[in-house]
Amino acid sequence: MINLTETERTVAQKVQELKARSGSHSPSLITLQETIPEVEIKVDACFLSNPYATGIFLDYFKRELLETGHIRNCLEFYPSQNQVIAEHLSEALGLPAKQILMGNGASELIQAVLHNFSGEKVLVNLPTFSSYYEFVQPPKQIVFNVLNEHEDFKLHPEQFLEKVGIERPDTVVIINPNNPDGGYLPYEGMLFILNNLKHLQNVIVDESFIHFAFEDNNFSLKGVAALVSQFPNLVVVKSMSKDFGIAGIRAGYTVMAAERVEYCLKHGFLWNVSGLAEYFFRLYARKDFWKKYEEARICYIKDAQEFFHALTEIEEIKVVSSMANFALVKILNDMRVKDLAIALLVRYGIHVRDCADKKGLQGEYLRLSARTKTENDYILNALREILVSRPFEWEC
Amino acid sequence: MINLTETERTVAQKVQELKARSGSHSPSLITLQETIPEVEIKVDACFLSNPYATGIFLDYFKRELLETGHIRNCLEFYPSQNQVIAEHLSEALGLPAKQILMGNGASELIQAVLHNFSGEKVLVNLPTFSSYYEFVQPPKQIVFNVLNEHEDFKLHPEQFLEKVGIERPDTVVIINPNNPDGGYLPYEGMLFILNNLKHLQNVIVDESFIHFAFEDNNFSLKGVAALVSQFPNLVVVKSMSKDFGIAGIRAGYTVMAAERVEYCLKHGFLWNVSGLAEYFFRLYARKDFWKKYEEARICYIKDAQEFFHALTEIEEIKVVSSMANFALVKILNDMRVKDLAIALLVRYGIHVRDCADKKGLQGEYLRLSARTKTENDYILNALREILVSRPFEWEC
Repeated sequence: MINLTETERTVAQKVQELKARSGSHSPSLITLQETIPEVEIKVDACFLSNPYATGIFLDYFKRELLETGHIRNCLEFYPSQNQVIAEHLSEALGLPAKQILMGNGASELIQAVLHNFSGEKVLVNLPTFSSYYEFVQPPKQIVFNVLNEHEDFKLHPEQFLEKVGIERPDTVVIINPNNPDGGYLPYEGMLFILNNLKHLQNVIVDESFIHFAFEDNNFSLKGVAALVSQFPNLVVVKSMSKDFGIAGIRAGYTVMAAERVEYCLKHGFLWNVSGLAEYFFRLYARKDFWKKYEEARICYIKDAQEFFHALTEIEEIKVVSSMANFALVKILNDMRVKDLAIALLVRYGIHVRDCADKKGLQGEYLRLSARTKTENDYILNALREILVSRPFEWEC
Repeated sequence: MINLTETERTVAQKVQELKARSGSHSPSLITLQETIPEVEIKVDACFLSNPYATGIFLDYFKRELLETGHIRNCLEFYPSQNQVIAEHLSEALGLPAKQILMGNGASELIQAVLHNFSGEKVLVNLPTFSSYYEFVQPPKQIVFNVLNEHEDFKLHPEQFLEKVGIERPDTVVIINPNNPDGGYLPYEGMLFILNNLKHLQNVIVDESFIHFAFEDNNFSLKGVAALVSQFPNLVVVKSMSKDFGIAGIRAGYTVMAAERVEYCLKHGFLWNVSGLAEYFFRLYARKDFWKKYEEARICYIKDAQEFFHALTEIEEIKVVSSMANFALVKILNDMRVKDLAIALLVRYGIHVRDCADKKGLQGEYLRLSARTKTENDYILNALREILVSRPFEWEC
């Protein structure tokens, strides 16, 4: 139990009301800060992004757009059409531009793919990112493949295929690494699934967190986007918000069969990339930017894995093994996540994700994102103080 | 006839190839400039926006985001959810937030409305903004109401209703003022149509250019968005790119029945507004910003109308009467629009919209947008030189 103070209970009430208005997603930081101006949010550990990469983007942004005055063009004029920007990305990814559809964040693309290409029945793993079932429009049906908590929500390809055989969906969704648990299915496992699901209309693979996963000591980038030529039912969805730390810009893309890209372009999606997102995608294709980004990516992975390891040393929690930039954490003692989240928020200014509303999770789960090393240490210290020493309780 | 030089013919070839890749829309300025680096584009008279308003936005942007460092939050973190931003706009518009769906530019909303709410048959006036027929997905059908060139493409409510009676569409689209001719149907005419089309599923009214139309000497803002409560089949689409001069940000909204907004929010559209667009919509609700914007709007209307009037004094062209920020112009002599457009581009750095690909236009039409007073004068001078004195022809 955590004994919340009067002030903390008031904040808890405000947060609860705000959450009720925000559906199955967290309110934005700006909305949260406006709702509880009395609390200064110091670390947003709800927010899943690489802050080192944000720094690199901002350096370029300042030097190339602000100092030159080119920012006016970015804001005033129409950005290029979807396919013009896809050509830049094509260079960076080494994939044909005609297989790339640019999006206003991955969110728009999840919507586009589900609305335009899914048939009658969509199978989604649980736990998951809620948009994958929320965006499915009736009368289309959603079925779930529930991952096992006692195996760290690990996805077993054979079990998955068996479930597909029973449920007979036309569309399946695999988030890899998965959100909210960070579970990662290695490339060979993905290939096995793709080879066995050629008869489906769609295999949607969301690789928004793939830049944080690794299978070798060099942290080489993995991913299945290059397999679209081989598997025409494969749709790879990719957000830029997490790995590049630019959620405010809204940038993402899908890689899918050229005729699907063409269908989407013919019925919309022409002007959906903003001037700043266009600037970002042009940067993405540049070697100088990529070199700096790769350093930031690897440094962040190391810090994140170190953070997750340090979390496992707190006995009061169980940490789910993660290849993403966040860790799903279960409280093992008598504390409630909602109280812990408020204590972290009010006493330390740390915002975390209470997973109470996440389908497929039983028990007291919270999700912690890895931030900078300094911030990770601050989070660790706060957790230790509340969960182990509980100094604030004694003061009450 | 305009005799193009060798260089001009090469540019013409490049522009033609680029246009072929851009479909029924113009390529972006950045793409155009990259395709013909040998030409310096000085005035983008293809681009339909108020440059004075851009200036006002940029002043705020510099003072409040750049100088304070708040820009990082705008780019790094997730912006607020759709409805949180709709609440700010609700204040500014004096309309219920639950009737407002925010969009990533009007383009996303045209798509959302046509894909989700149109039935079997959509009626669109011609000429029009091509997205309104391109975004309609088969097997849905498009029918056209062809406006009369000899009446300046004026929309007659009775004739429109008669056409609806014959074609029996479930959805009609009215762009007011219309693009590409600038024709304006006054409020009373719109009300008459709405009253007579209560039986349709959708009356889509695109008011993206409404801030440039006026019915009194004070240039008071008109529009039908407030009528959504009275006409549940009314959907008002609004871009922010034209009046506020911020096309690069991608910002727009629709006003429509609350249950339609709710349906869209339940199946996507949660995170479609960027951090900069959120900042803009917060500005929009502020009186200090609005006051400056209103001054810029009225100044721009006066300059635009003066520009259109000056155009009518060139005998070689016919200028269609416009209440938008552009004028559709027909060449009456033996010159071809495609040659004129290239001559303006290469000799003067002026980019204009050749309307050859616009359905419903017969003859040599180009569209000229009103820019700053200085730029308008520059355009006028260039047109006079080419159309009247033709100094470059004599030199050849």
